[in-house]
Amino acid sequence: MKSPEEVRQLIRKGRMTGPTAGLAASYAQANLVVLQKDLAFDFLLFCQRNQKPCPVLDVTDAGSPVPAIAAPGADIRTDFPKYRIYRHGVLTEEVTDLTPYWKDDFVGFLIGCSFSFEQALINQHIPIRHIDEGVNVPMYKTNIDCVPAGPFSGKMVVSMRPIPERLAVRAAQVTSRFPAVHGAPVRIGNPKSIGISDLNQPDFGDAVTVQEGEVPVFWACGVTPQAVIMETKPDIVITHSPGHMLITDIRNESLAVL
Amino acid sequence: MKSPEEVRQLIRKGRMTGPTAGLAASYAQANLVVLQKDLAFDFLLFCQRNQKPCPVLDVTDAGSPVPAIAAPGADIRTDFPKYRIYRHGVLTEEVTDLTPYWKDDFVGFLIGCSFSFEQALINQHIPIRHIDEGVNVPMYKTNIDCVPAGPFSGKMVVSMRPIPERLAVRAAQVTSRFPAVHGAPVRIGNPKSIGISDLNQPDFGDAVTVQEGEVPVFWACGVTPQAVIMETKPDIVITHSPGHMLITDIRNESLAVL
Repeated sequence: MKSPEEVRQLIRKGRMTGPTAGLAASYAQANLVVLQKDLAFDFLLFCQRNQKPCPVLDVTDAGSPVPAIAAPGADIRTDFPKYRIYRHGVLTEEVTDLTPYWKDDFVGFLIGCSFSFEQALINQHIPIRHIDEGVNVPMYKTNIDCVPAGPFSGKMVVSMRPIPERLAVRAAQVTSRFPAVHGAPVRIGNPKSIGISDLNQPDFGDAVTVQEGEVPVFWACGVTPQAVIMETKPDIVITHSPGHMLITDIRNESLAVL
Repeated sequence: MKSPEEVRQLIRKGRMTGPTAGLAASYAQANLVVLQKDLAFDFLLFCQRNQKPCPVLDVTDAGSPVPAIAAPGADIRTDFPKYRIYRHGVLTEEVTDLTPYWKDDFVGFLIGCSFSFEQALINQHIPIRHIDEGVNVPMYKTNIDCVPAGPFSGKMVVSMRPIPERLAVRAAQVTSRFPAVHGAPVRIGNPKSIGISDLNQPDFGDAVTVQEGEVPVFWACGVTPQAVIMETKPDIVITHSPGHMLITDIRNESLAVL
């Protein structure tokens, strides 16, 4: 198993460009949002007010590409395999190196990701359907309002994993230990109660099979902050490309509150 | 038992001016830090990076005195019994009403307080010595560095409660449920290992008796952010007066992550 630093070096040198799922599996992976400094306070406040969908692992100092807490040896301009650049809410470029685009007033937010709690579920022998089926996790817009902050407001996006009924409470327990990476589910069962009309039609990702005797379990999803930011159409926002995350030096288990 | 709103009304009308310990005991009380907007991002970032000593319960929008999440009916200018105003790091006024001092660029931070987890300890029949002795909790500067953010940096301040040895693990478990109000202890036992040379000489608050068969247990303390801010000597900072908190509408138990 390669260390986080070794994987980041390969990514930095362009020798690894694919999705990061399963790499350095004991370590937390992070989503990325880069904003100009003038939006940083309101966005950090949005995250503070909506910690389940927006669990912040680290925030870089304005202009610095170094996530000093999550991975002091990393550079957020080069250590994600792929980035998306949005101007006025429109995707304009997908690139593998942010260096030419970097500005002195950029602030990078590293946001916790569900890979961390999925590892905890796997450790408990709780199956993860989208992994078993080799697709992306299904994600849905809900009718749950986020708490607004400045220009940022919108509905929560959730991810769904079908869990055998006898294991659903255990899944809630296991993920409750990890509030820094989405934490406990927001709902077990009945999709309609949170405004999801058809599990087979996710808003993002892919549909998965829900088997007889399984219940859909919904967790707050890190797509929420990206969706909320895009609605405000800022001059520029940079995110990681879906599935192409940063491997941090933070062990998943160290994120557990108990 | 009066409701939070009833207590706040009495305080707002000036009919209650003392410390708030024990009032509306099921509800979380909050510390206050008011800063000018230009310092708000760095301070929020400091809190995000140091959640154990700086657990944020709510942040008001610039210029608004309403803590919309923690207590939508409250006014942070009037609903604390007493305030301290510091100019360039020096205490210049202690007042019971902030209204005449309020500015359009003020941002208020409500920070969780140990009363919440003390209630959880009491519910487990774990004794709280400073309550039994009728004094303030003893607090100590440690040698533990906070993670800096912008101009804010410094050492962590901890509070200490002597706990019978057989209950120390239980005290750690009980408070682990409450990361939003300082959470698990930072240390059990040996004060010297965190730079405290004499338990009888606290840096803030009062010394308490540590009995035979008890171990000192140290929790991160909300005095930390105040101490760190004062070192930067900003033009103006406003805090609550020690022990004179805001009663929020948040039930202590709702702050538990499990």
